Amino acid sequence: MSPDATPAPAVDTTTAGEGDGGGGRAHAHHGYIADKTAYLKRLKRIEGQARGLQNMVDDEKYCIDILTQISAMTSALESVALGLLNDHLNHCVVEAVAEGGPVAEQKLKEATDAIARLVRS
Amino acid sequence: MSPDATPAPAVDTTTAGEGDGGGGRAHAHHGYIADKTAYLKRLKRIEGQARGLQNMVDDEKYCIDILTQISAMTSALESVALGLLNDHLNHCVVEAVAEGGPVAEQKLKEATDAIARLVRS
Amino acid sequence: MSPDATPAPAVDTTTAGEGDGGGGRAHAHHGYIADKTAYLKRLKRIEGQARGLQNMVDDEKYCIDILTQISAMTSALESVALGLLNDHLNHCVVEAVAEGGPVAEQKLKEATDAIARLVRS
Amino acid sequence: MSPDATPAPAVDTTTAGEGDGGGGRAHAHHGYIADKTAYLKRLKRIEGQARGLQNMVDDEKYCIDILTQISAMTSALESVALGLLNDHLNHCVVEAVAEGGPVAEQKLKEATDAIARLVRS
Repeated sequence: MSPDATPAPAVDTTTAGEGDGGGGRAHAHHGYIADKTAYLKRLKRIEGQARGLQNMVDDEKYCIDILTQISAMTSALESVALGLLNDHLNHCVVEAVAEGGPVAEQKLKEATDAIARLVRS
Repeated sequence: MSPDATPAPAVDTTTAGEGDGGGGRAHAHHGYIADKTAYLKRLKRIEGQARGLQNMVDDEKYCIDILTQISAMTSALESVALGLLNDHLNHCVVEAVAEGGPVAEQKLKEATDAIARLVRS
Repeated sequence: MSPDATPAPAVDTTTAGEGDGGGGRAHAHHGYIADKTAYLKRLKRIEGQARGLQNMVDDEKYCIDILTQISAMTSALESVALGLLNDHLNHCVVEAVAEGGPVAEQKLKEATDAIARLVRS
Repeated sequence: MSPDATPAPAVDTTTAGEGDGGGGRAHAHHGYIADKTAYLKRLKRIEGQARGLQNMVDDEKYCIDILTQISAMTSALESVALGLLNDHLNHCVVEAVAEGGPVAEQKLKEATDAIARLVRS
């Protein structure tokens, strides 16, 4: 895998806002993310950590140092997840709740399921 | 947002080059890893997941789907950590314990500290 | 150690009596809990597990068996937490969001902070 | 490592040493716990927390406050688990490794399985 394969974020101006209320998420753009640039930067750093781990294993670095890196990476990932979840609750869920009805219920169920996966992973 | 703002993670690459953190680990190669190729493959996949997450954020995919990916990635990382810890206990720690003395104690302390970080992260 | 030496946990009982932690939660009864009896039953079982752990330690049972019990108890606690969080989102948060304003924001912030604590603990 | 360095657990005289290598753990006393009184105190406090939670649910205290208590209790449990695991590695596992053979392997396998359960719970 070529290391410079980092896909140019072809971004766009669509930022179509909060679109798909239902289960079918037909289009991709949700526009709920508070600060996309910051998230991309954090994820890029996490990608770098994953690459760093490969080098460490390849060089057979001291196991405890590798484990420390993995713990740091896991914390970084959790932190991204909590940020995204926060954005999601404050946008998608709030909007759905304002509308009410079955969509609101579904959004809340989805969110609590995602929280359960985070707590248990 | 400028699409080419994604900085080359110079920082994280250095992480990979990081030397042994002291504590009497003079050389870099420890040879305790049971199946290096398998670990490298798993970490390469994790790196791909990190890249996939960037695409998902960039495309503003549905938040819940991103969170599901993060949970999967966290589980994959934990699994690698547990494998490495197992190898470490079965090699470095067992050898140190066989020799006895302060090195054995230190290795056990290091291992339990690393376990605590994993449990808490 | 005599089994009836169990000192009354004066400290922890006060925890129970602890009032609302501020933030405009004037009264104690919130009525958001979907099935109080079921929660009480699950927490009673968790209390029993905590007592069982004391017996195991007192009898110096095999450490691995004690750890297995602790893992089971942690999972049971997490499960209660996720249930309560679900109830909370579906009642307090939904109501606050419907009203809107700073209270809604505060409720969401509180909820995401609580989620972060669960994910990290 | 001096074999008689194992601190006599003032508790009982059974201190049967590390006996049961196999799956059948015939006798109860293992004498590996560094400070039984301290563990019992911590577990008693955890039992009190479980009782406190029941009172909070019964009084329908504010959900977020209950969740905070659960996070605190989970952390306390994790901390006990890490302490016991540490004692176990430093006694049972060290002794088994010193003896070597299949018992050592089995003890290490048991320990890493227990660690995996802790990390994932």
